[in-house]
Amino acid sequence: MRMRARIKKLIAEGRHFLITTHIDPDGDAIGSVFALAFALESLGKKAAVYLQDQVPYRYEFLPGPRVYHTIPPDIFDAVFVLDCGSLFRIGSGHENVTKARDLVNIDHHETNDHFGTINYVDKAASSVGEIISGLLKYLKVAIDKNIAVNIYTAVFTDTGSLRYENTSLNAYRVCEDMVRAGASPSRIATMVYENHPKERYLLLGEVLRTLATYDDRIAMVHVTGDMFERTGTNSEFVDGFVEFIKEIRGIEVAVLMRELKEGLYKVSMRGKGTVDVAGVCSMFGGGGHKNAAGCRIEGTMEEARNRLLEALQAPGRG
Amino acid sequence: MRMRARIKKLIAEGRHFLITTHIDPDGDAIGSVFALAFALESLGKKAAVYLQDQVPYRYEFLPGPRVYHTIPPDIFDAVFVLDCGSLFRIGSGHENVTKARDLVNIDHHETNDHFGTINYVDKAASSVGEIISGLLKYLKVAIDKNIAVNIYTAVFTDTGSLRYENTSLNAYRVCEDMVRAGASPSRIATMVYENHPKERYLLLGEVLRTLATYDDRIAMVHVTGDMFERTGTNSEFVDGFVEFIKEIRGIEVAVLMRELKEGLYKVSMRGKGTVDVAGVCSMFGGGGHKNAAGCRIEGTMEEARNRLLEALQAPGRG
Repeated sequence: MRMRARIKKLIAEGRHFLITTHIDPDGDAIGSVFALAFALESLGKKAAVYLQDQVPYRYEFLPGPRVYHTIPPDIFDAVFVLDCGSLFRIGSGHENVTKARDLVNIDHHETNDHFGTINYVDKAASSVGEIISGLLKYLKVAIDKNIAVNIYTAVFTDTGSLRYENTSLNAYRVCEDMVRAGASPSRIATMVYENHPKERYLLLGEVLRTLATYDDRIAMVHVTGDMFERTGTNSEFVDGFVEFIKEIRGIEVAVLMRELKEGLYKVSMRGKGTVDVAGVCSMFGGGGHKNAAGCRIEGTMEEARNRLLEALQAPGRG
Repeated sequence: MRMRARIKKLIAEGRHFLITTHIDPDGDAIGSVFALAFALESLGKKAAVYLQDQVPYRYEFLPGPRVYHTIPPDIFDAVFVLDCGSLFRIGSGHENVTKARDLVNIDHHETNDHFGTINYVDKAASSVGEIISGLLKYLKVAIDKNIAVNIYTAVFTDTGSLRYENTSLNAYRVCEDMVRAGASPSRIATMVYENHPKERYLLLGEVLRTLATYDDRIAMVHVTGDMFERTGTNSEFVDGFVEFIKEIRGIEVAVLMRELKEGLYKVSMRGKGTVDVAGVCSMFGGGGHKNAAGCRIEGTMEEARNRLLEALQAPGRG
């Protein structure tokens, strides 16, 4: 493969690399970055990792190198940017990394804008973890336990535990390889999925009491500042709630409205493919993907809800 | 393998088979039974399926043959009993099936009591689906889409989406094979995991408001008759709730108390391996497995909770 060969040559000729990924990083972002860092080190190279944001609590168990939150002032032979459709997605450092001689863009997003000097974009891959796994095989890197745990977590989380539509045949094969190299499926699942603070469940209890469905195909919940206060939580704790109510039988669109301040709501919308939720959110100045989008709406809770419902129930939207 | 060879001979010589599994059947039970039925039919045999209980709603999407809820009066050349540690687990028909010339016991439980004339018990297998997959390969059965969907569902659900400790390397391989043969991971996940009635979420909201933790390692919730009434639900709807609160960070034991009538509670307990919950439940006349057990307790809610806590906090239990 031409791209892999170019990356191999660049690694062979260089000595000092920077690896980064997008803001608000998920399991695929962090697992892929850490795996590549370990791999480069095993090849006798120096690899620095830059993440604008902290590692989320559920991924803190991942073995990894030191993480820089500001870009070190070193001169890098190349910068690897993983899981980013556009360069600005890496956050505050994006003006600086273009100074590197080579910018290696490794991604699986449909919308990648080919910002690199090398663009290794495989839209059929379930995850960047899957791409990195293939790359390491090509580079003949020995997969040790540290690499295995990171790649397993990347692939497993980005396929929603091998449940989403992007679950490729190769995703199973990569998971199997990583388990053979030392990744423990049950330990990783416990760390990633069974690691929520108790307060999250108290908040979920409050939120579920607001559940309403419309036409048996739209499910809506909301969360208010009062609820955060009563349960000792904040907006971080609602992660996953909208996906959770999407599991209701027959539901095509799940909506979570979060009160930012009185009269202003942040809306998260998830679909099952029958409705283009990005299209609906764009009517309110928001956007996203076909199955996951967001926007902001002003007004009272009831006004906001009615405007959303009207948009979702408009002809041609379902 | 000797057992497989004996099963192959028995199938070759017979013509009419009965296949059954345990009461309150799960995905592994139903998927394995249906897969074996399709396989026997593809070999030109007749296969009748007997289940004492209905197919649970989440598994109704599985392609399958006609299901008998009373054992047909036919004479069978052999009876296949899948996923049962003991014969009585099949329910009301267990006295009758022993009349068959051969009783083929295919299982993966630690505690299997070898009730068959042929006992193909593989304790290392993640699921009976995994065993059936190997058996069909041995029998040179072509895996069509109907078989693939059933085996995939069996393996995937019995490993908790490839998350539990029983997730073997071979489980990935079997899933991969079944996807190649036509099983759709995202469709199956939607049917199995995104198919709950709305009322379940309303009930969960009520139940989560009772959440209390003790020593940061025991989590307890309860559900009352009032809650069922308010949300239009019944005891079927609490399936999965106790596993859900086990996902709280640091929790080693999750407990759900269900009010059966005033002063009587059914207790479901789940552990993460550090506490033998079957041992705790046995103190109240109940039992189960190390990580999943149950019992009944009398008294007021508070008395019952205190007795459970005392047992869970006793020295040597954690």
